[in-house]
Amino acid sequence: MTDTSNVNDSARPSRRGFITAAAATAAGAAVIAAPAVHAQAPIKLKFQSTWPNKDIFHEYAGDFVRYVNQMAGGRVELELLAAGAVVPAFQVLDAVSSGIIDGGHGVSAYWYGKNKAFSLFGTAPAFGWDADELLGWVRYGGGQQLYDELTQQILKLNVVGMLTGPMPTQPLGWFKAEITSPDQMKGMKYRTVGLGADVFKEMGVAVTIVAGGEIVPAMDRGLLEGAEFNNPSSDTVLGFPDVAKVYMVQSYHQALECFEVLFNKTKFESLPKDVQAIIR
Amino acid sequence: MTDTSNVNDSARPSRRGFITAAAATAAGAAVIAAPAVHAQAPIKLKFQSTWPNKDIFHEYAGDFVRYVNQMAGGRVELELLAAGAVVPAFQVLDAVSSGIIDGGHGVSAYWYGKNKAFSLFGTAPAFGWDADELLGWVRYGGGQQLYDELTQQILKLNVVGMLTGPMPTQPLGWFKAEITSPDQMKGMKYRTVGLGADVFKEMGVAVTIVAGGEIVPAMDRGLLEGAEFNNPSSDTVLGFPDVAKVYMVQSYHQALECFEVLFNKTKFESLPKDVQAIIR
Repeated sequence: MTDTSNVNDSARPSRRGFITAAAATAAGAAVIAAPAVHAQAPIKLKFQSTWPNKDIFHEYAGDFVRYVNQMAGGRVELELLAAGAVVPAFQVLDAVSSGIIDGGHGVSAYWYGKNKAFSLFGTAPAFGWDADELLGWVRYGGGQQLYDELTQQILKLNVVGMLTGPMPTQPLGWFKAEITSPDQMKGMKYRTVGLGADVFKEMGVAVTIVAGGEIVPAMDRGLLEGAEFNNPSSDTVLGFPDVAKVYMVQSYHQALECFEVLFNKTKFESLPKDVQAIIR
Repeated sequence: MTDTSNVNDSARPSRRGFITAAAATAAGAAVIAAPAVHAQAPIKLKFQSTWPNKDIFHEYAGDFVRYVNQMAGGRVELELLAAGAVVPAFQVLDAVSSGIIDGGHGVSAYWYGKNKAFSLFGTAPAFGWDADELLGWVRYGGGQQLYDELTQQILKLNVVGMLTGPMPTQPLGWFKAEITSPDQMKGMKYRTVGLGADVFKEMGVAVTIVAGGEIVPAMDRGLLEGAEFNNPSSDTVLGFPDVAKVYMVQSYHQALECFEVLFNKTKFESLPKDVQAIIR
């Protein structure tokens, strides 16, 4: 599990590396007298995930933070925070846009309530491709341009977003009893997100949309009768087996998904160009 | 298609960005008098791929070069070269180790002749996982340690290698006639690589191992009767449809593969720590 303290520990050698590099640059430049060279203090950026601290997805966010901090050689220092540290998971997009936090780690499916087009990036059509191919379309096939149009022009959000981290097909989720027919899900209080939420509603399911960290408590209190979050590792750590004994492991509701990294656009564009390239 | 010239073009804004950053650092430091600040000249590194210039894999190598150059802000400048520019494709590993070139882009399967253990990283076991999971094992499951042991301790090569870039399942390849039975491949002069080469030899196939760029000329001259390289896009650009009319699109010989980026270890370790992190 990655937490803020060991992210900082891991970044230390890089900061030392940067001081050496800065000293070398100064020595190579036409400096007449330089009694001491101090590297600039790092630009600190608050980076909150949409994941509970114990979820492996928060560990992914921690990996991203550590890589950026190491690659930037101490010039920026992303501070990793878990869901709820500053704002709840579902408010991360707005909080990044308004600058309450500088960046965020989550999934586009969480913003489906703002605009159904987020489904293209979070709960994309299930057939004919996988998450690697989704990312190929985003980076080389025009997907990023549509994403930027959606976030910046249509929703007028002050964010830059990048999609990364392909995920495998997600199971249908956790239930009290085995699901052998769609009829069993009619009227069931079931948690899912994105396009799948609308499809299940059409099927008569009582879909309830909550953030990942809130699912198990809701099932425990009977507010949910079935739920999917994402994958066996996350689900186990989050405690799903304690509140439901049946795990249905195939589905089409999210055959492919990827993570979304967000930054406040004004803040991002104020960073040195090479640090922007590192973050991208 | 990415070539050396547009890689350099793309890197230009980053170099300007670095000069600004270096100036800001100097201004923030305790410099008494600094009439002019010049960024250090970039460390130039010769980076040769194992791919022909027109192959999309050489374009991948070009993407890697462009990303590193941008992220390093002009402190290093990888120069992209195609297979044969300095050494033939199959000599890239030795050339990186001896320092004839500083880095290389290829696949571990090309070094199977040196040690069959390269199969773990180039022609890995076909069942139960995909290339994303292979990379997960490399980065988080002990694979990198085995790779380092193989290259640095067993083969005494002066290289650091990193695995990246997951590939989908590879087709059986291009033939003069449809293959409907393994018997048809008995005695056939067929190009493949890695563990698959040994499996096909056991099946009685006359396996001939050549680099990607040499396959189509060899088929054209009758030195090969069948061949697989990698994927429909690469194969089409390399001219396979001109020399064989039947493409068999399913196979188990390379269900998963990834790219390999190599650097001369001495050179790599002489780079600033944050540039090392960028390359990794």
